[in-house]
Amino acid sequence: MKKDETMNVWRINTRTGEHNAEPAPETWAHLGGRGLVARILVDEVEAACEPLGPKNELIFAPGLMVGHMLSSCDRISIGGKSPLTGGVKESNAGGSTGLALTHLGIKALILEDKPAGEEWKIIHLSADGVRFEPADDLVSLGVYEAASRLIERYGKNAAMALIGPGGEMGLRAAGVQNLDKDHTPARIAARGGLGALMGSKRVRAIVIDASGGRKPPIADLSAFRAAQKVYNKALMGHPQTTVYHDYGTAAMTNMCNHFGALPTRGFSAGRFEGAEKLSGEHMRQTLLDRGGASETSHACMRGCTIQCSNVYGGGDGEVIVSPLEYETIGLMGSNLGIDDLDVVARMNWEANDLGLDSIEVGAALGVAVQAGLMDWGDGERALKLIAEIRAGTPLGRILGNGAATAGRVLGVERVPVAKGQAMPAYDPRAVKGTGVTYATSPQGADHTSGLTIRAKVDHTDPEGQAELSRGGQISMAGYDTLGVCIFAGFGFAAAPETIRDLLNARYGWDVDAGILKELGRETLKLEREFNKRAGFTPADDRLPEWMTREPLPPTGAVFDVPEEDLDSVFDW
Amino acid sequence: MKKDETMNVWRINTRTGEHNAEPAPETWAHLGGRGLVARILVDEVEAACEPLGPKNELIFAPGLMVGHMLSSCDRISIGGKSPLTGGVKESNAGGSTGLALTHLGIKALILEDKPAGEEWKIIHLSADGVRFEPADDLVSLGVYEAASRLIERYGKNAAMALIGPGGEMGLRAAGVQNLDKDHTPARIAARGGLGALMGSKRVRAIVIDASGGRKPPIADLSAFRAAQKVYNKALMGHPQTTVYHDYGTAAMTNMCNHFGALPTRGFSAGRFEGAEKLSGEHMRQTLLDRGGASETSHACMRGCTIQCSNVYGGGDGEVIVSPLEYETIGLMGSNLGIDDLDVVARMNWEANDLGLDSIEVGAALGVAVQAGLMDWGDGERALKLIAEIRAGTPLGRILGNGAATAGRVLGVERVPVAKGQAMPAYDPRAVKGTGVTYATSPQGADHTSGLTIRAKVDHTDPEGQAELSRGGQISMAGYDTLGVCIFAGFGFAAAPETIRDLLNARYGWDVDAGILKELGRETLKLEREFNKRAGFTPADDRLPEWMTREPLPPTGAVFDVPEEDLDSVFDW
Repeated sequence: MKKDETMNVWRINTRTGEHNAEPAPETWAHLGGRGLVARILVDEVEAACEPLGPKNELIFAPGLMVGHMLSSCDRISIGGKSPLTGGVKESNAGGSTGLALTHLGIKALILEDKPAGEEWKIIHLSADGVRFEPADDLVSLGVYEAASRLIERYGKNAAMALIGPGGEMGLRAAGVQNLDKDHTPARIAARGGLGALMGSKRVRAIVIDASGGRKPPIADLSAFRAAQKVYNKALMGHPQTTVYHDYGTAAMTNMCNHFGALPTRGFSAGRFEGAEKLSGEHMRQTLLDRGGASETSHACMRGCTIQCSNVYGGGDGEVIVSPLEYETIGLMGSNLGIDDLDVVARMNWEANDLGLDSIEVGAALGVAVQAGLMDWGDGERALKLIAEIRAGTPLGRILGNGAATAGRVLGVERVPVAKGQAMPAYDPRAVKGTGVTYATSPQGADHTSGLTIRAKVDHTDPEGQAELSRGGQISMAGYDTLGVCIFAGFGFAAAPETIRDLLNARYGWDVDAGILKELGRETLKLEREFNKRAGFTPADDRLPEWMTREPLPPTGAVFDVPEEDLDSVFDW
Repeated sequence: MKKDETMNVWRINTRTGEHNAEPAPETWAHLGGRGLVARILVDEVEAACEPLGPKNELIFAPGLMVGHMLSSCDRISIGGKSPLTGGVKESNAGGSTGLALTHLGIKALILEDKPAGEEWKIIHLSADGVRFEPADDLVSLGVYEAASRLIERYGKNAAMALIGPGGEMGLRAAGVQNLDKDHTPARIAARGGLGALMGSKRVRAIVIDASGGRKPPIADLSAFRAAQKVYNKALMGHPQTTVYHDYGTAAMTNMCNHFGALPTRGFSAGRFEGAEKLSGEHMRQTLLDRGGASETSHACMRGCTIQCSNVYGGGDGEVIVSPLEYETIGLMGSNLGIDDLDVVARMNWEANDLGLDSIEVGAALGVAVQAGLMDWGDGERALKLIAEIRAGTPLGRILGNGAATAGRVLGVERVPVAKGQAMPAYDPRAVKGTGVTYATSPQGADHTSGLTIRAKVDHTDPEGQAELSRGGQISMAGYDTLGVCIFAGFGFAAAPETIRDLLNARYGWDVDAGILKELGRETLKLEREFNKRAGFTPADDRLPEWMTREPLPPTGAVFDVPEEDLDSVFDW
């Protein structure tokens, strides 16, 4: 496959400070984003290594379509061996990091090794190359304050990926945060503990000054523009685009509640009496009523036409958090019996400021309730528990290391995890295809790896769910390799040929319409290979035993997809 | 193989209270102890199950030679799927439990399922059968007080296996304690979290009244007595028997220190400047000087001629703990930089009273020091940290769940574990054959699975260690199946034909002199099969990465046995 000669692999040794930029090997040329992360891990990282040790790598790889402000197609994939799951990990985010990296001609940024010392560094990338700067003034600062100091220091045009106190402390729920187009540091590559991995390399922030760079070249500009036009039209014409524009991901609250899949009180029920107060409709009305800083539709990336995000303002007109997403609402709201969006928004801000995955922390708090450390619905206590994480107390470290560790330490069996990663806000007993994805995805429990809730099937019927999940997993691995947002998929699904056309126009390739699934299958195969070498077996492709036994009200469903089905997901 | 028709499998459902006694299946007849535990797990327990859930079983199986007060041959094997490692687990102990079970004709006792309620029970076994009694008056009581109440209630002739607060709390460092011949509840089947497993079934104690029972039959009594005579002579004539009689296992302190393998300050050195004060020689002299309750030679089982145990008395003539063993000295002493046996003895008493594995707790405390929670050598602080375990604080729960969990939560990479189980007091870098055993034993890091320190080899040379470990692992799995103490092996090694003769005389069998290794190989094969089903792979047969990198003073050794060698251990 023709290689874009302007794009290089930048490699930085965090121990020695050595760095270089070299062309990508042939076998990497046709990959980007999640697929490239998987390829690099298989090629370079000893799968059984200690994730926070010197042998692991932290990888940043913009997707194949990144660089052109195509609507919702500029996502950055961040990856490495997961400190949370012990397996392959790619977590992607919007914001400006992907765009900026491509404008410097960076196909992949690889941070290697681990310093012996304790000093924190900033890595600065620009057209002039790489430089290390001290970050000791940022130590212990929350992400918001740290980002604002970095913006002051490097200017508003710099893109940034940074960690917070959670990553500094090596907590396995820590993610890597990226600035959105309005410089808010809340586009988090949240899952799998990549913030702890970045922290292990003593890198507090990566600052990308793309001002001396340029857009990646386009082999056939007119073909590209033509395909872009078709794609845009398909995307804008899709009814879900309007739904997400108006209600954001919080539109899912009512849908999941309807299906009896809304995590409620530690995944003990699938329908929550307070769901209406957590709904997208309620949120939109609240934000419209409040005005001030509130925005019901906000783009995370430049050029995005969906604008599914929001700015959640308080009654005083000030921002509480931006954005407030469904997964956070599900895990920090209904999962804890909390029906007050203001409280959930405050919890979300705290998690963001600590640089932690709100799904993982919400799930860990659900474990804490079961261990008697909090009552259902007690938001003030939840905030105090999050404050324990900030203070680095033993209890805080238990929670900040995620739900599985919290369950193990606190003696709670009913923990909603797969491969040690907390489940997002779709109870897998009531949406069994998504349960298959949670169980079998090489990433661990992850809704973005293959959500099935929109399929027109009986989601509580175990039959056919493996096939449904397989299709979703392949497509999503493909989209994540392209750098394409899950919601851009609505547009591409309506005009699938545009993926082929955009790639061929951008790179001068000659791929056919099967490219999305080809990339998806290749990515999954690489990820499975890495996990196999890391010691994963079919025994890891399972949901927790209690979910196969405990019926979920109101559907009464248990997770009963046969193990043979789970083991057949990757037989294609 | 001829079956002893007087020995049955007693099976108790802890949820329903149902129980029965049935003949063992044919394939179980020739097994006992560790081998039988492995066989039962493979036959009956879904290997991927949740260890603290209803599908796991807690198994008590006396070894094949148990029942006749042969010197050091009445050990009880306790097993199940390990809550600590997630793999197969057998942990054996001396004391009177094994003897009492055989006198009731119990070849194996299997506790199944898990009650829904919160009440604690005592299971009482006698010639009249099984009965459940309430144990709520024992809740939260330390093991010593609980045992003394149980002895008051059931009399001095009852044998007992009980858990402490650690097992009640579901802590994964919890073991199962058994009374020694003098009714001290300190013969702990310590390793792998079997106390948590017993606690998950809400059984606080098993009381065995063998008064209505009788010794198991002997097919050829005169042949048995003749073989016993040869064995006794060989055992008594072995120089190590005298060493262990006089100095106990603490004789190892100087030996390990000599080899540079004595865990010192979190396995950061192999030689400790305070080793002399932790030595068997020093301990013996101290106990002789103090007199009072002190005993330098004490038997844990009736009939034992080695008497390697001791009663560690204080300057006031009162017992501090009984016994004080080398593993505890290594992990709670030198590993923490503590050179005062009185302090180690007090820590040991606390761990016993909580029903916890002193190896696992000592290793976890070494992690706590690295996390800044204690200074090296600060015994009073160590006692305070153990008190946190008793109080059930978050920090206490971190430590009580063992070293691997403590490392994960507290952010410490340098944790001495294999398969999640803490290493005993032989640094594997300086005794590489034992390192191979730690890495590859299906049990996790376990010196009793194949210690190689007595072999006349260069222990820091990586070559040939896999073979050495293989031999040790096979023999030890054999001895553990016989119910034979590791030190009885000195006698059997000097007169190997007596194993054959004793088994043939006892059971009317016709086995040959290869029986020990046959039993060992069969046991290991079953254990590996269980672990494989549970999801273990060669990636689990490794030591922690940091031990392959960090040289151990004074030898400067790293663990450099090639991975191919590790993967060849079970190719026989």
